[in-house]
Amino acid sequence: MSKAAVIFAPGFEEIEALTVVDVLRRCNIYVDIVGTKNEAIEGSHNVKISPDKNIDDVNINEYDALILPGGAPGYINLREDERVINLLKNAFENNKIIAAICASPTVLAHAGILNGKKATVYPGMEDEIREGGAIVDNSLVVQDGNIITSRGPATAMLFALKLAEILAGEDVAEEVRKKLLFDMLLEKTL
Amino acid sequence: MSKAAVIFAPGFEEIEALTVVDVLRRCNIYVDIVGTKNEAIEGSHNVKISPDKNIDDVNINEYDALILPGGAPGYINLREDERVINLLKNAFENNKIIAAICASPTVLAHAGILNGKKATVYPGMEDEIREGGAIVDNSLVVQDGNIITSRGPATAMLFALKLAEILAGEDVAEEVRKKLLFDMLLEKTL
Repeated sequence: MSKAAVIFAPGFEEIEALTVVDVLRRCNIYVDIVGTKNEAIEGSHNVKISPDKNIDDVNINEYDALILPGGAPGYINLREDERVINLLKNAFENNKIIAAICASPTVLAHAGILNGKKATVYPGMEDEIREGGAIVDNSLVVQDGNIITSRGPATAMLFALKLAEILAGEDVAEEVRKKLLFDMLLEKTL
Repeated sequence: MSKAAVIFAPGFEEIEALTVVDVLRRCNIYVDIVGTKNEAIEGSHNVKISPDKNIDDVNINEYDALILPGGAPGYINLREDERVINLLKNAFENNKIIAAICASPTVLAHAGILNGKKATVYPGMEDEIREGGAIVDNSLVVQDGNIITSRGPATAMLFALKLAEILAGEDVAEEVRKKLLFDMLLEKTL
């Protein structure tokens, strides 16, 4: 069973954070909601969520993937937390899957792990990842080796399904995609 | 400012429940996460959320809309909670907006408020709302007067945006839809 850690800092974006947790758990991937503090953490739209684990207790070697939701001021709280930056560097050195959505690819850039990598980010923030050496790609979900990035709340399900594909395999991801009615959404909306 | 109550019972579907809260709050609609119990409530994928208010303290006259997320066993817990059924009947009699997604349109049917109404539900559960007198429509989001229904996790954003349009107006809903990157998702995926 694959294991993923999703980092929740105050001001996380609820749709992005919870869609990833929900979709990966539907795929039988073990997911820890890792909080940057012990008590309930409040999202950017004031939803209070109890973390499963504290970041101080995370040993990255026990996980296959490290995932950052976006949201303001969530991404700033992630970027300014040395424990998050250290985890990212450690995960990168150990070839773990590293994923970030919305504003949080800028946290990866800040940690110095986007240099020479294709990546995407929330529209308007491209320069912030370019400064970290990223090759900006405006697809909805971008994979370059072990690094997966995506753009915002509406692309969170696509981002989660790409992670599901990598961590649980294409068949499982495809089955969950159908149960979520993702294909129905695309077919019927246009 | 419009006011909405979203009812969280144990086993609520996280994507559906949080997408609605997030999108409506982005539209400056006042939203209460109303819990069927006082402590943190666990969703169908084990995410623990602190409610803003207890259902026993809800006076429906203070709200414009009553919203039910889906999820199993969330919808069963909603259906078997007499306080939820009474709130629904009360909301219906007072011409409030009533909305349900995924499996939860069956809760509206059980409360007797779908009789003769066009409605939709999670695929495969159509007979359960038909038995309550609903006229089944397989669109992603269905509005019949004050009653709005939708189909599942992937249609939660569309459902929330329809509620936003009704409660905050088309211009606000359109602006939030853009910021969520919903149009970008549809354009770029196909």
